[in-house]
Amino acid sequence: MSSLYTLAIHGGAGTISKASMSAEAQKNYEEALLNALKTGETWLKNGGDALTAVEKAVVELENNPLFNAGKGAVFTHEGQHEMDASVMEGKFLNAGAVSGLKHVKNPVLLARKVMDEGTHVYLSGSGAEAFAKKNGLAFEDDAYFYVPLRYQQLQEALKQDKVFLDHKETKPDKFGTVGAVALDVHGNLAAATSTGGMTNKKHGRVGDTPIIGAGTYANNSTCAISCTGHGEFFIRAVVAYDISCLMEYKGLSLKEACRIVVHEKLVKLGGEGGLIAVDNKGNIELPFNSEGMYRGSVRSGEEKFIAIYKP
Amino acid sequence: MSSLYTLAIHGGAGTISKASMSAEAQKNYEEALLNALKTGETWLKNGGDALTAVEKAVVELENNPLFNAGKGAVFTHEGQHEMDASVMEGKFLNAGAVSGLKHVKNPVLLARKVMDEGTHVYLSGSGAEAFAKKNGLAFEDDAYFYVPLRYQQLQEALKQDKVFLDHKETKPDKFGTVGAVALDVHGNLAAATSTGGMTNKKHGRVGDTPIIGAGTYANNSTCAISCTGHGEFFIRAVVAYDISCLMEYKGLSLKEACRIVVHEKLVKLGGEGGLIAVDNKGNIELPFNSEGMYRGSVRSGEEKFIAIYKP
Repeated sequence: MSSLYTLAIHGGAGTISKASMSAEAQKNYEEALLNALKTGETWLKNGGDALTAVEKAVVELENNPLFNAGKGAVFTHEGQHEMDASVMEGKFLNAGAVSGLKHVKNPVLLARKVMDEGTHVYLSGSGAEAFAKKNGLAFEDDAYFYVPLRYQQLQEALKQDKVFLDHKETKPDKFGTVGAVALDVHGNLAAATSTGGMTNKKHGRVGDTPIIGAGTYANNSTCAISCTGHGEFFIRAVVAYDISCLMEYKGLSLKEACRIVVHEKLVKLGGEGGLIAVDNKGNIELPFNSEGMYRGSVRSGEEKFIAIYKP
Repeated sequence: MSSLYTLAIHGGAGTISKASMSAEAQKNYEEALLNALKTGETWLKNGGDALTAVEKAVVELENNPLFNAGKGAVFTHEGQHEMDASVMEGKFLNAGAVSGLKHVKNPVLLARKVMDEGTHVYLSGSGAEAFAKKNGLAFEDDAYFYVPLRYQQLQEALKQDKVFLDHKETKPDKFGTVGAVALDVHGNLAAATSTGGMTNKKHGRVGDTPIIGAGTYANNSTCAISCTGHGEFFIRAVVAYDISCLMEYKGLSLKEACRIVVHEKLVKLGGEGGLIAVDNKGNIELPFNSEGMYRGSVRSGEEKFIAIYKP
């Protein structure tokens, strides 16, 4: 057992400009990121496993209305919520994914349950919610997911007939997704991602979040990745697994693999967003090609890092 | 424009033993494969594009009750049908995917429509069917999808409380999926996959078929892939994109990349099944680690190849 652990988290990427963010809003985001980071780190510091650490960090972010996941999920075109999530662990390559959830309080916990149950990897829609009920997961009614700012965003989107990824115009235009990746002291990697989708999106649209290989991937021989961005492009580019392959097959460092995928391949395709990545040696990368990304990270024995805008 | 084109198709992999197959049944399968191959080849021979060729071949297989896709889709635990499909083209890396369809006659045509429409890549469930209605796709009622053999399979599965991938015991135990991959004379690659899922599967289960990178992938710089097998393992192994990465990043041939993924990595993980693959040089591979795979292929100027059992 080593004493080395790492944890990185994100709360979405996009057009997040300092000019449009009040000092108070910025403080709220920073505090929320710090809390999620602390929760995951406490677990890792005490020898806990990477999978549970990323799950705990993501639950914190899901429960915070600031982020587009769980409680803060945006509204679909029909005025409903459809949430997706996935988890993967790097030792045995086990994974769990869920999509189209309407009332499950913490989608990431359901993804973990799907993984642990073991029969299927990916459950969607009412079938996924039936599985959640059977397994005693917490449900919330529409009132819990009603966040006035989100509803206002839908009304604006409907007026302009636009699909908003989270905020637009006067507010930060971010791709609402949350995620966490970690390396634990046992040398195991894990990743988790959760989202409320896109404001005014078509009912039934699935982004990259529940797609193993696109939005989420973990493999002890390479890295753990959680993405946030314009999901359609992340699916077509198989972003998370691409970074793993560049490391495994081409021998690239985590840093170089992240640079090529986020700043070259995705840009060429037209895909805006970013990701968080840790490898099995303790390296951490938080690349994004958008204006900003809510992000944070910590390595054992070092100070916590929190940031929103471009360095 | 070259005169070189290739096309490969599959109708599922699994425990397909010669002993349990009547001469008449074998003839029916071979004829069905040949018809699908002819349909796609006619298009390619006349200079048609790879994407439409694989779509046409898959429509033939979907309309045939012998295969677990479209008309021949198996029953879920609840006695319903849930069909998935996806398409991808290798020039611009455009893709379309759909899952959880109950009444769309040809899921592959809906996946193509999602791709062509361009806003989203992946639509699921009732949202996908609403999109299909809006776009005038053909719907069929439950009676169309009622194939007595499939219903009998569900009753057997319910009695034994087992999730059947297609057939079991007295019948060929195959992973019901159909697919096609092609290289056209313009040098473009494309892939398409369609499935009716697993007999007695949990409502909402999604396999690898609609997952770009897992069940389907196409990239002009490497290859086009369509998978069939125990989908959960194919998702965790990101099978289709893995073959592309082994070629692009490690410089492996299509043959060697297929061997490593199907006969080493999938076997180690416990994943049974196979895939069809063509590359941008005219090579064709049809590897599987199960007892058999319904398959066929053709290269310009050569005889058509059809097979079911191990060579």
